[in-house]
Parts: sequence; structure tokens; C-alpha cells
Amino acid sequence: MSDEKSFHMSPAEFRRHGHAVVDWIADYYSRIETFPVLSRVEPGEIRASLPADPPRKGESVEAMLHDVEKLILPGVTHWQSPNFYAFYPCNASGPSILGDLLSSGLGVQGMLWATSPACTELETHVLDWLVGMLSLPQRFRSTSTGGGMIQDSASSASLCALLAARERATNFASNQHGCDGKLVAYTSAQANSSIVKDAQIAGLGRDRLRLIEVDQNFAMQPDALARQITADRQAGFVPCFVCATVGTTSSNAMDPVADVGRICREHNLWLHVDAAMAGTAALCPEFRHMHNGLEFADSYCFNAHKWMFTNFDCDCFYVADRASLVQTFTLLPEYLRNKATESGAVIDYRDWQIPLGRRFRALKLWFVIRHYGVEGLQHHVREHVRLAQQFADWIRSDDRFELAAPVPLNLVCFRHKGGDEANQTLMDRLNRSGDLYLTHTRLNERLTLRLCVGQTNTIERHVEHAWKRIQEEAASLP
Amino acid sequence: MSDEKSFHMSPAEFRRHGHAVVDWIADYYSRIETFPVLSRVEPGEIRASLPADPPRKGESVEAMLHDVEKLILPGVTHWQSPNFYAFYPCNASGPSILGDLLSSGLGVQGMLWATSPACTELETHVLDWLVGMLSLPQRFRSTSTGGGMIQDSASSASLCALLAARERATNFASNQHGCDGKLVAYTSAQANSSIVKDAQIAGLGRDRLRLIEVDQNFAMQPDALARQITADRQAGFVPCFVCATVGTTSSNAMDPVADVGRICREHNLWLHVDAAMAGTAALCPEFRHMHNGLEFADSYCFNAHKWMFTNFDCDCFYVADRASLVQTFTLLPEYLRNKATESGAVIDYRDWQIPLGRRFRALKLWFVIRHYGVEGLQHHVREHVRLAQQFADWIRSDDRFELAAPVPLNLVCFRHKGGDEANQTLMDRLNRSGDLYLTHTRLNERLTLRLCVGQTNTIERHVEHAWKRIQEEAASLP
Repeated sequence: MSDEKSFHMSPAEFRRHGHAVVDWIADYYSRIETFPVLSRVEPGEIRASLPADPPRKGESVEAMLHDVEKLILPGVTHWQSPNFYAFYPCNASGPSILGDLLSSGLGVQGMLWATSPACTELETHVLDWLVGMLSLPQRFRSTSTGGGMIQDSASSASLCALLAARERATNFASNQHGCDGKLVAYTSAQANSSIVKDAQIAGLGRDRLRLIEVDQNFAMQPDALARQITADRQAGFVPCFVCATVGTTSSNAMDPVADVGRICREHNLWLHVDAAMAGTAALCPEFRHMHNGLEFADSYCFNAHKWMFTNFDCDCFYVADRASLVQTFTLLPEYLRNKATESGAVIDYRDWQIPLGRRFRALKLWFVIRHYGVEGLQHHVREHVRLAQQFADWIRSDDRFELAAPVPLNLVCFRHKGGDEANQTLMDRLNRSGDLYLTHTRLNERLTLRLCVGQTNTIERHVEHAWKRIQEEAASLP
Repeated sequence: MSDEKSFHMSPAEFRRHGHAVVDWIADYYSRIETFPVLSRVEPGEIRASLPADPPRKGESVEAMLHDVEKLILPGVTHWQSPNFYAFYPCNASGPSILGDLLSSGLGVQGMLWATSPACTELETHVLDWLVGMLSLPQRFRSTSTGGGMIQDSASSASLCALLAARERATNFASNQHGCDGKLVAYTSAQANSSIVKDAQIAGLGRDRLRLIEVDQNFAMQPDALARQITADRQAGFVPCFVCATVGTTSSNAMDPVADVGRICREHNLWLHVDAAMAGTAALCPEFRHMHNGLEFADSYCFNAHKWMFTNFDCDCFYVADRASLVQTFTLLPEYLRNKATESGAVIDYRDWQIPLGRRFRALKLWFVIRHYGVEGLQHHVREHVRLAQQFADWIRSDDRFELAAPVPLNLVCFRHKGGDEANQTLMDRLNRSGDLYLTHTRLNERLTLRLCVGQTNTIERHVEHAWKRIQEEAASLP
């Protein structure tokens, strides 16, 4: 593009190299099942293969792609493999990758409406679509008092919710004068550790986050929550926030949102509902019961980047009262002042999140919804749930194994009856084989294997194969 | 990829559509100068053009690209236009877009070393390269006590630094029991507003962030800092953190890092140095003096996504003592336990940041450095500085205008001598014309125009044209 000396890649070069990278990715997905799912490299091995110093002169894209193939790929754990059952899915899909590519190409900043109006408005619009698609409460719509936006992760979403709760409880005194050690928050003992991290970051402290005991299904006990709130008030603390989980990371346990919500309303506490993975299932009416009571929630999130085929990062975060969030975060230095902001007619998403900058993430979500259509998304979610339930049936019918928790959706927690050591051996052998990748948790003090069916391309034959491999390794246990 | 009913995009379809999206982006860059830089849409206009409901059935990629062109593009402010001089640059480049595309395609999670070793090791390695490239202190290298990583933004980087400082000052009591209203932090009155937001988020409170007065060049006055620290100690406060800025957002002012650093050392305060845009200039030895004193810093960041041709998000964040950061953030729930983490031989970057999840952002940075080579990067940074200095000379030589601040690098703060109204009119007319986009600040209580030369493709003819247009509009001022 330059008539001077330039090291930039011209549009013509970009076109040529871009086609090559697209081809590489298409080929990667065609051969993805040939790689061991879990990388086999040792610590330091990748670094040792890289030059100690950066190049003084530029190199070719061909050389870089060669190195991606030879040096990087061995160090990749293949989250997009249909044989990936570890942690939770973190899905990519064709339309999502293309939407993200457009976002990289346009390279806009969406910190303010004015810095690229389409970035803000498409996000607001698609998040409103999702209120209908998941049958979320109407007050989460931007056309009501609330609204949705894309955060990088459920951790950041819950932190923003906690901060808004902190400010509501102190009438913004915490923002002004800092925390005073009196605020307390609540979540279940099975909630994601990010809630503990949030309490630390927000200045409440780990001690002030009460981990409420769970029932035999690993769900929060509302009675215990109510007792703790009362005890805290009596002790002079200021309860401000409850995080209920719809589908815990460990076992997909479902906190009773309606019961928790009534308690929050009674005590005027902010209720945040974290449905990071499970939320996507609400695309299908038959799974929406898990959201019963969501009308009590002040905020809610689920991760389209987990199970809705939209690549990271894409956490969908909703609030019922957007003003509370904006008041928590807004600061308007001179260099960001502009007429649109001052008119009050627009959303400036920087006031809904921790960082200032933000990329055009709505494009990938829009592409995914349009490519699949609501019916396509429902189909694949139903299939994943069906396959997980089938796997649970196989576990139930094999005397060597047992289920370790209810299986409400797509995560199966199970164990070999031979004890922790047998399960550790089983998991290590399976993961080392490269045929599949699954991870573990502890439930009732016992090592428990987790098989999460949710990777974009996982279909029946993959789950069948996983079960076959699990049976084989179980047969050869000492 | 499926032998069952599937709505997924096949690799063959991805290849075809991927080429089309790459072509669209190549064409976009070829015609980018034909668009008005600042979008002209009114609030709500983009949303009004979108269907109220999501599609039930999937749609074609052709239809989506058609809508990107017709519905989205009018709402885009063209940050990648060479006529973009607003705020600060937020650069994309060919190699960066391709590296980011690979990251989307691989779709890995880098929260732990074990979840994709290459994601962590390439990041550590490239950040070590940058220590040499920018001539940063050796203790920021991962092979020393410190290390670097990619954060989403300088706001998040400074928040992490503040949290580590908070914990160091309280011996981790804040993490445990919460903040107690005694901690105080310091930055200049010209620092980015994100530092105020950080103080709010971290539970210190806005009142506890002391905004230290600046000198006539808008740089922090070390004497004023020292006096305030002493006064705070005497009043029973606990000073913990200073943020010095190398290149303020408003005017590119350079805080005297060495003087500030000596004060921090004397009082045992954490020094964070924020060089968000300006840091990139340290690629060139002749600009490295701005980093004098950086050996006193506990942490440092600059944004490769601003001026180093690497698209958002890519803030490079360094700490001198990585243990202090890890101790601030680490929590190890059972479901994340793994042998590599427990061996202590690896970095788990989730313990260096707010969210848990993280994408493979090092790929784009690696591609940029390799494509340009150190010499290519230096060339373009030098050119941008040269063009800004040339523009500053034009301002100096035109009696109608004056410079409003020193011009150490690539940001020119200037004003028409006709007063605030004349400058507002000038800016509005220029931005409305679509020929260029610049923004404003206030310096010494007066409206000041900012012209920041740093967009990837900005070359001499663009800056000449900007000056011509400014002169034209100035000539027609009332």
C-alpha cells in the first residue's frame, strides 16, 4: 500500500498467505483424529526448539507455517479433537473462526459506542436474540432495564457482578473509600474457584466468601445459606452477593436457583447465576427447567465459547439493571468524552467490564447463530446430551463402574470401583494413549473421572470408542 | 466430518468460505481509504437494520458476508485506516491477522501449561525475546526471577500489578481478610483513568489513590510524590503501589521513572511502569532513554496491540518477581490438579491474570516479529516518529497554531490559537469530513487536539494530507 520503503504485507500477499493459512486449518480439522489428544511434550521441550534470539531480518510466512507444523503442533493439546472429553469443551466451529477472522481484519475498538457503533450495536442485538433463544427473563433484554454483553470469561463476568453487588450494598462507598472488611458473599462449596479469586480481587477477602454446604447431589443447600446469612448479619457483617451455579465445573450440579433466589430477595442480596457450560442447553425447551428461578437473578452468564460452537473468548453476561453496573465502573476522562456518550442514547461497553479495550467479538457469535440457525444448535446440543446419557447407561450396566453424581446433561462423573489408585491408573493410561483425553475431580473424597461430551465434532462413534478404550484399560488393571 | 445428520461446516466448506473471507479482508485494505474514517451512523441505526429474531434455519456464508458489507461496514470506524489519528493506534497487520486466525483455528486453552504446552512456552519465549528487543531489565526475563506474559490490556496489567502490590504490603492479609481502608496508591494526575478504576476494583477506593501533581510538561513531580508518601505514613496509611507512566494517554508525557523508582525503593513500594503506547519505541536505541530507571520497576507493560502491528488483544506484561504474582492469584481446585503443575517446572499463566481461560495469543506476536524482523519494526516506528515530528514542525511554523505539549515521539498535541470553540469546530469539521479522524484532550484547562501518528499503513502522504485538510478548515473558521 506504500510508495516508500515498507516491510508491511501487501493486500495481495495477505490474500495468498491467507489462503494458505485457511488451507492449513481445513487440513488440520481433516486430520485432527490422527494426533494424540493430550500433548506428550516435556516441560521446556518446545522452548528448546526455538531460536534464542528474534530474527533481525524478516522471514517468510512459509517458514512460519513450517514451524507451526513441526515445532508448535507437538506441543498442542487438541481441544478441537472430537476425542476431547476433559474439563469442559471450548468449542470452535467454521462460522466462528470466520467471524473471528473478520474481527481481526477489521481491527476495531469497541470501548465506546462512538469508536465503532456496529461493534456495540451488533453485540447488544445478538445478546437480545439469546434472551429469546434461551428463554431468559425479559428484564435481561437491553430494551428493558437490563442488557447483555460479551465478557472474556465467566470469571470476569462473576467479578463484575460481585463488584456491582459490593457497590449496591455500600451505596458506592467501597468505590470511594475502599472495602472495610465487613462485606460477605456466598457460593456453594462446589462452585468454581474463580468465585474465591473474585472475592480476593474485589477486596472482600477469602474469609468473607462463605462456602455453603451442598446436598448429596452436590447442590447448594438453601437452608444452610439462609442460616449463614442470618448469622453473618447478627455478627455485624454486611451480606451483599450470592453466586448460584447451574452446572458446577466439578460435577454439573444444579443449585436450586428459585430457592436461593427467594432468600436473596428476602435479604436484598445480589444474585448472580453462573451457567458457564450448562447454560447452552437452554436452547432446548426440555432442559430449561434448570433455569427455574432465574427471574430472581440480578446477573447471569453462560459461555458460548464452551458448548455453543463459538471460539474463545465469548462469555455472554446479562444484568437485570444495567445502571448498577455502569455506576460501578464509569469514569469519563476528557480524552474519551464524545457527543454520543453525553447524549445518553448509547451503550459504552467499557463501563460494563474490567478492561477499557474490547474487540468485535459479536461477529463470531452472529455468524454461529446464523450458520446453524436455532434448530441446528438445538440438534447438536441434544445429540451431545443423548450421547452422554448413553455413556452413563453403559457405566450403570457395567459392574466394575459406578456413577459418582447425577447426570443432568452432558457431563458424566464416574469411577471404577477399584478405588483411587485404579482410577488414577485408568486415567493416566487412557490419556497417555492419545486416543482420548479426560480429567478428574474429587467427589465425596474419592477420585472421580469426568467425561464431558460437548466438543463440536464429537458424534456417536467417538463416544463408543471412548467406552471401548475405557473397558479395555479397565480389563488390564492390576 | 460426520456420518450423521450434521449442521457443522465441513473442512471443504471451511476452505471455500475461508478463502472468501480472506479475499474480503484483502479487498477491505485495498479500499480502506475510500471510507469516511469515523462512522456516520446515528445511535440505533445499525440495530434497526437487523432482524428482530434469530433465524430458525441456518443461512449461507454468502448472506452473512453480504450483510457485513451492507449493514455492518457503515457502522465501523476504521481504526485500520491510514487516516486514523485518534486516541492511539490499535494496529492490525497481515502477519498478525494470520497468527490470530491460526489461534482461532487451533482453539486451545492455555490456562495451564498442561492444557497446551506450546501456548505457554511460545508466550514465555517471545516475551523473553522482547526483553532483548526493547532492552528491558534482565530481571524481567523468565530465566531470571521474573517473566512476561500477554494480558488483554494495560488496564488489566496494572490491576494485576496493584493486586500483587496490595498482597506484598499486607503479607497476603488482604487476600485472606479483605481490605481495611488503610492501603494507598499513587499515580500522576495525568495517568490513564484505568488506574482509578483499578483502585476501585481492588477495594482500595478512589480516595486512596493519590493523584500526584505534574510539572509543566505533564510529568509526575517526584518531590510531590515523596511528600505525599511521608504524609500518608504519618497519617497511619499504608502506601503500597506507584504507577508511573511512560507516555501518558493525554499528551505522551514521560514520568521521571528513575526518580520515582528511587522513592519507591526507599519506601519499599511496588513500582509499576505503564508504557502502553510509547513502549514500542524502545525497539529503537535512540528512544530508550524514556525507560531510564526501569531497573527499579517491579512490573512493566506495553501494548503490542497499539503500535507494534499486533492486533488486539496483546498487552505485554512483565514482573521482576513472578512468585509475588503467582502467590497473589493461585488457587488449585482438584479439577485443575496435574503432574506438571505439581512438579513446579512449568508456568501456569492462569495464576498471572484475572480470568482463568486464555487463548493462544503468542502466535500473532511471534508472526509479527518474524515477518518484520527487528529491523522492519524499527523502520516503521522511526518513520512514524519522523512524520509526527514533521507535523509538529508544521504546527510550529504556522502562526495560527501552537504546540500544547512536548512531542517526545509520535503524538502531537496542538491547538488553534482561536480558543476552545475554534478547536472544537475544527475537530468536528475534520472528523465529519471523513478524511481523517483525530480526538482531543484538555491541557492547562484548554481544549487541545491530538494527532497520533502510528497506524500501520500511515505514510508521509497521509500526514501531508492531514495537515492540508487542517489548514483548509482553519482558513474557513469564522
